[in-house]
Amino acid sequence: MKREEVFNFSAGPSVLPYDVLASAGAEILNYNGSGMSVMEMSHRSSFFQEIFDSTKAKLKAALGVPDTHEILFLQGGASLQFSMVPLNLMGEDGTADYAVTGNFSTVAMKEAKKYGHVNIACSSEDENHTYIPQQEALKLTNGAKYFYYCANNTIYGTAWNYVPRTDAPLVCDMSSEILSRRVDVSKYGLIFAGAQKNMAPAGVTVVIIDKRLAGHELPITPLMLSYKTMIDKDSMYNTPPCWCIYVLGKTLDWLKGQGGVAGMEAIKHEKAAMVYDFIDNSKRYKGCARPEARSDMNITFRTGDADLDAAFAKEAQANGLMNLKGHRSAGGLRASLYNAQPMEGVQALVKFMEKFEAEHHV
Amino acid sequence: MKREEVFNFSAGPSVLPYDVLASAGAEILNYNGSGMSVMEMSHRSSFFQEIFDSTKAKLKAALGVPDTHEILFLQGGASLQFSMVPLNLMGEDGTADYAVTGNFSTVAMKEAKKYGHVNIACSSEDENHTYIPQQEALKLTNGAKYFYYCANNTIYGTAWNYVPRTDAPLVCDMSSEILSRRVDVSKYGLIFAGAQKNMAPAGVTVVIIDKRLAGHELPITPLMLSYKTMIDKDSMYNTPPCWCIYVLGKTLDWLKGQGGVAGMEAIKHEKAAMVYDFIDNSKRYKGCARPEARSDMNITFRTGDADLDAAFAKEAQANGLMNLKGHRSAGGLRASLYNAQPMEGVQALVKFMEKFEAEHHV
Repeated sequence: MKREEVFNFSAGPSVLPYDVLASAGAEILNYNGSGMSVMEMSHRSSFFQEIFDSTKAKLKAALGVPDTHEILFLQGGASLQFSMVPLNLMGEDGTADYAVTGNFSTVAMKEAKKYGHVNIACSSEDENHTYIPQQEALKLTNGAKYFYYCANNTIYGTAWNYVPRTDAPLVCDMSSEILSRRVDVSKYGLIFAGAQKNMAPAGVTVVIIDKRLAGHELPITPLMLSYKTMIDKDSMYNTPPCWCIYVLGKTLDWLKGQGGVAGMEAIKHEKAAMVYDFIDNSKRYKGCARPEARSDMNITFRTGDADLDAAFAKEAQANGLMNLKGHRSAGGLRASLYNAQPMEGVQALVKFMEKFEAEHHV
Repeated sequence: MKREEVFNFSAGPSVLPYDVLASAGAEILNYNGSGMSVMEMSHRSSFFQEIFDSTKAKLKAALGVPDTHEILFLQGGASLQFSMVPLNLMGEDGTADYAVTGNFSTVAMKEAKKYGHVNIACSSEDENHTYIPQQEALKLTNGAKYFYYCANNTIYGTAWNYVPRTDAPLVCDMSSEILSRRVDVSKYGLIFAGAQKNMAPAGVTVVIIDKRLAGHELPITPLMLSYKTMIDKDSMYNTPPCWCIYVLGKTLDWLKGQGGVAGMEAIKHEKAAMVYDFIDNSKRYKGCARPEARSDMNITFRTGDADLDAAFAKEAQANGLMNLKGHRSAGGLRASLYNAQPMEGVQALVKFMEKFEAEHHV
């Protein structure tokens, strides 16, 4: 298929802006008169250092990161953060509060148990993670080292519609919503996000950490998993994932042209509402998440029939609407509407849903 | 500068074949009729699974990896392997033998001390890592869990000219020589290599592990740092560095066209000998490593004057010969002649060395 015939609804890695890819392609053999590809550059070269510094500065500006916080570009995905967070923040014999609202927060919580005490501050497991517990339901530990939550649950299609109020530093997995809405970074002790949803190709993980939290890692912490080491070396203790950082810089340029994070916030709800409204007025489709907990990034829904779900995903794919099958652990269907998903993609999806419903009456 | 005016001697990330970059660039907006870039593809899609499987198969064929061993595509660079190796192989109260022949084996050895007992089997530190201790000098521990060495010392420009004979499983950091010479993989318990020298852009780390060694990790091992987890999930416990794996596949195609690893082995010594011979016949330049320990991948040399070394690197850069400055910890000059360094690059280097010597008589 031609690129213009395809809309990609993958939950991650996911669609990147055309301009970002075209620009990277245009200079893939020769970046900025260096005679080299960014893929070949010494990470200690002035060429790459400029890419690194400017990307960091752009991200700092886009999210309004205060000087108290450091931006790190790491490897290993959000999953490696599930270990790095407790290894660095738990301390000897510490306790952390975990909000369990989906698959990834469950894995993170289990991982933290290796390194300290874990208190389940809340869980939505009783309702198959279709909702987000509210502030008054949170059971907080006095003296907890941190409070951990996942802002947007990619698999279940839910998102926190509030920032928890806690005495402990807030640690937040923002993998699937970073750069889609404004965030007061100063409220957070640590934010992390795998790049492959709203930022860049898979391979770089952004960490934004209050520098005061670093330097207290357990003695068993692997060298590369110490935030302190990475802060001291400005993410270059060893070779960073240069290409992914470079593409992230281009995405941030594109984002700025779209009105920045505020611009994304303005349009994301509009995009999601088109699909949710259609679902709510349909007899065939049913949303999985409770309305008040719905994610604008990942829309989970079902036809009410597993075979029909499969037929929907297959037929959609044949029509250029890619990756609409739900996560293997949740089933059903899922449409991810990340920043780079154009309005035309959302319109095409709704049109297809309409057609499919007409062909498959309830 | 134009690409054809530049030769890149970086120690890593380093030069990639023109055909690899051009081919990646040509399909950056639309891979194989998918309508998507490889940077945007779900790692669970059939498109990417095919890339993953074929890359693994090509690497298996190129290195002759036996079925007893598994190939993993991980993140975090060789530096993360410095921790993963002891966490997975040391066992409770275990001892490992480390050969210390440069900077990276020193870091690896220190990291292993966090997780077990370390015996220094040999060290070349007494002579500033200009040589490689021979078999008869190795002090081996009875019952060691593994013997660790770094086959090619990028910073000091030395390489092991033999495979150590030990009872313990051999663990080898082959980052800067993998795919440049034939290796009997069956002799090794574990081989690892960061991609950014002979394989791909920085961001993927190849691990080749005898499957019998996996599954004995210490209980404190982070989930993502367990070889067993990664073997069980075929490197996709979470999203792998898809783009780097894809480029690696292209490099392996290119390698095959060059006669494979045997082809590289045939030419690498010829390339290196051109420079070493010139150095040995020169009054101005002096090689850093002892002749019998010289690396064909990284040639370290000096003019005998630190200011002149700096002038050399600067003037070379102005003439399109990039990244000839030695590592900051070793000083001097360094020319890396990895697989993708064309003969023309080596010739241009020697020509420049000749000219520079004529202008700077001893």
